[in-house]
Amino acid sequence: MKERELTQKEARAKVEKLMANVETMFFATNGSHGHPNIRAMMPVRIDGTQAVWFATSLESSKLIELVKDNKAAIYGYAPNSMAEFRLWGNVTILDDHESRHLVWTDELKEHFPEGADDPILRVLRFDVVSGLYCKDKKSGLFSN
Amino acid sequence: MKERELTQKEARAKVEKLMANVETMFFATNGSHGHPNIRAMMPVRIDGTQAVWFATSLESSKLIELVKDNKAAIYGYAPNSMAEFRLWGNVTILDDHESRHLVWTDELKEHFPEGADDPILRVLRFDVVSGLYCKDKKSGLFSN
Repeated sequence: MKERELTQKEARAKVEKLMANVETMFFATNGSHGHPNIRAMMPVRIDGTQAVWFATSLESSKLIELVKDNKAAIYGYAPNSMAEFRLWGNVTILDDHESRHLVWTDELKEHFPEGADDPILRVLRFDVVSGLYCKDKKSGLFSN
Repeated sequence: MKERELTQKEARAKVEKLMANVETMFFATNGSHGHPNIRAMMPVRIDGTQAVWFATSLESSKLIELVKDNKAAIYGYAPNSMAEFRLWGNVTILDDHESRHLVWTDELKEHFPEGADDPILRVLRFDVVSGLYCKDKKSGLFSN
């Protein structure tokens, strides 16, 4: 394929810009019976191309999947330009006071009425291992 | 969780309706290094909740993933209502004349200028094993 390869630095910058602008992200896990699983999910905090944080409920089936296998992927795209990014990484499930308060925003109250210390709240930290930016024939990989 | 469970028949009907209305679908594969992979992808043919067909290029990296492991998932959602569906299934990569013509539409010409028999066109048939419909606290599984 006649693609123009971006440098790692260019790819990171484009992924960061796209992450800040997409309306939603898609979070994939290794699901049951060997099939992947996907859901739309908005991050609660983004640390550039290093880590992406989510808030989830203890009742979510994705927690069981992540306990079994913490390898995951995040995907996002701009429907108009069809610019896309993918991040591959490993997820840590956190329950400590500091992580809960690091990600807390009042928008989460709808799901966690007891606030940052709601017993059903769990914090997912997705540590980015590698990432990819694609648009038309232009693409670039980076790795951490 | 206090969910209302749909019957298999109700879940199938709701997934079929949602599939006909979503703007895009998300196709997940078991990618490299044990991580899942995702991309936005529109089907070229939908046979209810039995099979979903895609057209892809021989140059697509997803073909390599599917040759290694044909287990995949499809996800779609309505951003306004947050109704969601998931399908889990197995993918067969097809190259025969009949499959090519079964899925061909002129919209594919942009990617496959030589038409249905373009040598770089491959047809993916995703045979649904099971599916899930979710909206609010209402959900239903079905299996084929």
